[in-house]
Amino acid sequence: MGEKYVIGLDFGTNSARAIIVNAANGAEIATAVFDFPTGEKGVVLDARNPDLARQHPADYLKAVTATVTAALQQAAAVPGFSPESVIGIGVDTTGSTPLPVDKQGTPLALLDEFSGNPAAMAWLWKDHTGHAEAVEITALASKMRPQYLAKCGGAYSSEWFWSKILHCKRTSPGVFEAAYTWVEHADWMTGILTGTDAPDVMKRCICAAGHKAMFNPGWGGYPDAEFLTAVDPALGKLRVTLPDRAYTVADAAGGLTDKWAAKLGLPAGIPVAMGAFDAHLGAVGSGIEPGVLVKIIGTSCCDMMVAPMTRELPDIPGLCGIVPGSILPGCFGLEAGQSAVGDIFNWFVSYMRPEKESHETLTEKALRLKPGESGLLALDWHNGNRTVLVDQRLTGGLIGMTLQTRPEEVYRALIEATAFGARVIMERFLEYGMTVDRIVNCGGISGKNALLMQIYADVMGRPLEISKSAQTCALGSAMAGAVVAGKAAGGHDTFAEAAAAMALTDDKVYQPIPENRKTYDRLFTLYKKMHDSFGVRGYQEGLFEVMKELLAIRDEARKG
Amino acid sequence: MGEKYVIGLDFGTNSARAIIVNAANGAEIATAVFDFPTGEKGVVLDARNPDLARQHPADYLKAVTATVTAALQQAAAVPGFSPESVIGIGVDTTGSTPLPVDKQGTPLALLDEFSGNPAAMAWLWKDHTGHAEAVEITALASKMRPQYLAKCGGAYSSEWFWSKILHCKRTSPGVFEAAYTWVEHADWMTGILTGTDAPDVMKRCICAAGHKAMFNPGWGGYPDAEFLTAVDPALGKLRVTLPDRAYTVADAAGGLTDKWAAKLGLPAGIPVAMGAFDAHLGAVGSGIEPGVLVKIIGTSCCDMMVAPMTRELPDIPGLCGIVPGSILPGCFGLEAGQSAVGDIFNWFVSYMRPEKESHETLTEKALRLKPGESGLLALDWHNGNRTVLVDQRLTGGLIGMTLQTRPEEVYRALIEATAFGARVIMERFLEYGMTVDRIVNCGGISGKNALLMQIYADVMGRPLEISKSAQTCALGSAMAGAVVAGKAAGGHDTFAEAAAAMALTDDKVYQPIPENRKTYDRLFTLYKKMHDSFGVRGYQEGLFEVMKELLAIRDEARKG
Repeated sequence: MGEKYVIGLDFGTNSARAIIVNAANGAEIATAVFDFPTGEKGVVLDARNPDLARQHPADYLKAVTATVTAALQQAAAVPGFSPESVIGIGVDTTGSTPLPVDKQGTPLALLDEFSGNPAAMAWLWKDHTGHAEAVEITALASKMRPQYLAKCGGAYSSEWFWSKILHCKRTSPGVFEAAYTWVEHADWMTGILTGTDAPDVMKRCICAAGHKAMFNPGWGGYPDAEFLTAVDPALGKLRVTLPDRAYTVADAAGGLTDKWAAKLGLPAGIPVAMGAFDAHLGAVGSGIEPGVLVKIIGTSCCDMMVAPMTRELPDIPGLCGIVPGSILPGCFGLEAGQSAVGDIFNWFVSYMRPEKESHETLTEKALRLKPGESGLLALDWHNGNRTVLVDQRLTGGLIGMTLQTRPEEVYRALIEATAFGARVIMERFLEYGMTVDRIVNCGGISGKNALLMQIYADVMGRPLEISKSAQTCALGSAMAGAVVAGKAAGGHDTFAEAAAAMALTDDKVYQPIPENRKTYDRLFTLYKKMHDSFGVRGYQEGLFEVMKELLAIRDEARKG
Repeated sequence: MGEKYVIGLDFGTNSARAIIVNAANGAEIATAVFDFPTGEKGVVLDARNPDLARQHPADYLKAVTATVTAALQQAAAVPGFSPESVIGIGVDTTGSTPLPVDKQGTPLALLDEFSGNPAAMAWLWKDHTGHAEAVEITALASKMRPQYLAKCGGAYSSEWFWSKILHCKRTSPGVFEAAYTWVEHADWMTGILTGTDAPDVMKRCICAAGHKAMFNPGWGGYPDAEFLTAVDPALGKLRVTLPDRAYTVADAAGGLTDKWAAKLGLPAGIPVAMGAFDAHLGAVGSGIEPGVLVKIIGTSCCDMMVAPMTRELPDIPGLCGIVPGSILPGCFGLEAGQSAVGDIFNWFVSYMRPEKESHETLTEKALRLKPGESGLLALDWHNGNRTVLVDQRLTGGLIGMTLQTRPEEVYRALIEATAFGARVIMERFLEYGMTVDRIVNCGGISGKNALLMQIYADVMGRPLEISKSAQTCALGSAMAGAVVAGKAAGGHDTFAEAAAAMALTDDKVYQPIPENRKTYDRLFTLYKKMHDSFGVRGYQEGLFEVMKELLAIRDEARKG
């Protein structure tokens, strides 16, 4: 048997990519990227509503063909490679990114009737239009089904499945009525590739269902109809369109259809693994296992751990989710995260636009600053707080400015704020009995931003490793493809075997610098005061309401 | 008797100006400006110490000759004007801006021995190097002489006379030892022009002495030697070099010396009024009287009121000072203020440098925003808080940022923050029984920034008038010149008469817009929460210390 290859398909916020990976050693022999053509960098926005963010499903279809075809062309130059040596495919997407579909599985956005209607498109993970609905669902669940909340950090988010669907029902009833059901982007992709895109036969992945839609085998899958009906009778009706079972990435969604095989030039019938969120397959691509904290640091940050299902795991307040099998089969998957990291630095450079500065010049100047030297302290909530406060109605903050404060000081303070946010997450894991033996970092920022990585090491007080692959999400998808293909076909039988062969880390490890740690410990104490004052109800008289009231006033002003 | 003229000399932070004014009708027939040549825009800074700000006294001397000569040349073109028709001179300066002098009155900075030594120069009002000393003096006074503090808002500031002198003693003992005594810039100027610059004959103005050096006739003038000795024995020794009396601007410092008369081309012997701070003579130039709040809005803001000395006035906590005769003879002068206003907007434009933006473009865009629309809320403490918190160890703040926040929104939030700060000051006056019938605004910003003035009117909920003169400080100085000249010489016998003739307001009055007021009332409530949380010890557990601890960490980091 010659070399065998797997394809990892990775759908991000602005683009999609395909990589072709050697199943035996993780070597990435080809990679191709496709920028989503619709909207602003692939995202449909609304100037009047800063909470809105959508994607067009037509972009997803174009992306599959464009990236796989281009990657195969590249790979053709590699000795021993042929399309026939591809043994499996894995897929990851953003999420929760649900889209309304008809009974055949056709996204409403692809129907003439709804052409150009953002409500009929995919509701991107970072769409927060459903924040009022999230509060409503949380309130009802805390009365009727507290167990649902316990598994998703104590609050249901505006970023998630039901909040978005309910908001669609309230604000775009025409779209809502026309939808047979809603499917996550990940499930729709694997459905399409395997011909199981009709909702009644489509398999749903545990990752999306468990982390974003309150699915749990413990209570029989998706939330029960009584609860959903209490939220809104229309949601109760939707319940019957959802299956009772969900699948891990160790399961195949099916085999590649003849049609797609022909279109892409791949063997028909090769297994396509169940999809999962980019972050979760990124954790797989970073070699996640019990004791390893994987951080995917990009526009936002996702923090993941796994814990063997053989022991009891307490509910951890403020975590986005604890779901059996969501990351690795046989383990609880634990997800935490920061709603914005790189997005905050991008905001500063692109929106605040300090003249003659770029990420590069600011980084260079910020590198010369000592911890604490600027006198600044920031809060990293420009896109809300996902963990541990689980509150979208929080905003950014910066204190300590003087008449001498300069852009590079603010830039560094923003990086430090995200590092403090990262420490809050790690400490929450530790508080609840998880052990963190290693921290493996991946994602766009970890590989190229040494300033940030050193600050994170100093603030967290831990050595930080970096994934060798620059495309860990796609790599994780490819690993899933290798596992569903199995050892007999030239893949792997387990994720542990796949990780040992394919998920490697860099030689460079960021070690905490003791002197910096001391200063950052002091600054972290101040950060925590700010964090709790603005973020924890009742911690300080009055301040908890300040950011929320500001947003309420803003929203009224924009409407008025 | 033909037309009579008076000269107002106004020394600012970056430049000095002279105006020549018709004493009968306030017409400004000539004006000349001189930019101080030393340092950065006239201010000597220290990159390693952001608290340091000094001026070179040589610049002051150059400024007198340059501005008066140029103004006289301009005025020569006015029919009926001749240098002989100038009947008096008034002088205002910044303060507290003390400088060390020898027994002859020569500033140490003009001696070769101390050439280029910032400690030997004038310690500009905004120099905050003495913040530790200010805390020390405040602590001691609160034990030994609480009455001293009651008249200066409950805390002695790092911006003031004794803090600066004590800091010099501690950090530049050579300069301190060489100084016979210290004099305020205002007193040194009038001393020079009238030949009374030797410290033992120099008259001191009540304005500087009373507001900045704890001088009060009630306790026999300057602080007593026992108290000063307790602060530091060296200060106790300095006490004997200070006179027991201080003078109002209705008093003349003396007559213009032959030497200066010849140098400037003016009649020898014409009276030079006692000096005062720019703000106080600005209030005079704006027609201050009981019931009128004068706001001088420029790089910083000074808020002034007067109250007849015929009635008892309670101590008002947080005011910079309550001093008999400091603004108008026969009235208590009350001073409050904001340490930075225009400086904050300048910081944003010059230091944060949003690309392709200027004050003009940002103002234009900010004008299109509705109150509250940005969701932002700022704290205007980039240069500390002068009133009502009297705390230099406070810093700026901004909350509410999202990934969509734009520079013009921040710019507007900064303006709004200074407006909220202005309202806090007005409310403090009202709380303690002062009545505010009119608000007259002057200073660089009030005349040219309609956006800011409208926001202030909306936030304060009051009509805002504007002084007709663009140079109210210089005009007030000129009015003092007219009063010391007297009616018989073609001037005025009282400031009320001078004001009626010379201090006029614009036709344009900014009226509060009811709808905006409503939103700003809500935002002000939030501002007050932030203000009290970060600014009032004990108001909220923990937050009061946050900004201070940040500065302590910063200072350590910069030293380390």
